[in-house]
Amino acid sequence: MLTLFRYNWHVRDEWFEWCRQLSPEELNANRTGGVGGILETLFHIVDVEYSWICVVQGKEVVDPLFSDYDELEKVIALSEEYHRELERFFQQEWPVSYNETITPPWMDGQYKKGNILNHVIAHEIHHIGQLSVWARELNLAPVSASLIGRDLTQIRGMGNDQKAN
Amino acid sequence: MLTLFRYNWHVRDEWFEWCRQLSPEELNANRTGGVGGILETLFHIVDVEYSWICVVQGKEVVDPLFSDYDELEKVIALSEEYHRELERFFQQEWPVSYNETITPPWMDGQYKKGNILNHVIAHEIHHIGQLSVWARELNLAPVSASLIGRDLTQIRGMGNDQKAN
Repeated sequence: MLTLFRYNWHVRDEWFEWCRQLSPEELNANRTGGVGGILETLFHIVDVEYSWICVVQGKEVVDPLFSDYDELEKVIALSEEYHRELERFFQQEWPVSYNETITPPWMDGQYKKGNILNHVIAHEIHHIGQLSVWARELNLAPVSASLIGRDLTQIRGMGNDQKAN
Repeated sequence: MLTLFRYNWHVRDEWFEWCRQLSPEELNANRTGGVGGILETLFHIVDVEYSWICVVQGKEVVDPLFSDYDELEKVIALSEEYHRELERFFQQEWPVSYNETITPPWMDGQYKKGNILNHVIAHEIHHIGQLSVWARELNLAPVSASLIGRDLTQIRGMGNDQKAN
């Protein structure tokens, strides 16, 4: 499972670099599908991952507003800030008890921590697929989505390969 | 990891149902991003999953041609045929040795089986994200991508929850 989190962080950072070729207007333009436009969809990915992992940890969930982060550098900074915290979580509290249940503050019902973590992984990959269509609509090559061929051992300080799967 | 395969099969079947509201022309229309159009992208998902899992099993890889499967019912039938084989694989040969390496016939280099399985999971979710944009471009609601709230225990004959994660 950690491999897929690492994959998502890799791909997300490549999309942030990819975004540097776009103007603020292109980054913020409303597009069909996804969440708003390119930058808001990336902000949403960052926000949703962190929120759910706060739930898994039993920590308070804070809801940042996109209106406070509507510039590329601000979304990158938020992603990096959250990523540092998530790395600590993955190093110190891994493996999570998959079958333990928890109720997120914005929903009813109890959800297994394992399902929450899988949901977070799928959520990001799904939205990145949307970005890839928008890239082609802008006549730009998207970031590669391939996991094969990525060196995922290079993520800062993450665990070993055996744990990673 | 099995949870994410189950999730993909669930979501894929819901997309097949969703496709029934479209005409053959809409299903086969070329679209921006993805692989050809809606139906060819679904065919590609089915083909790629099965090919990689044949590689993991050391089985010969067969390459079906989309021109032989360019109708919705044919792609659904192929998906179901492959799914039955994959269920046998997941029941009889699970867990896979993640760190064992193998070379697919269409590539050079050796790849860990664990990375191949994660690649297959991410590959499908990514392309489904593309379908969701095309759905909105057709003014149709896409299939939900949420893993939370899906009853993934109902997949035919798959293992128990502990294994599933």
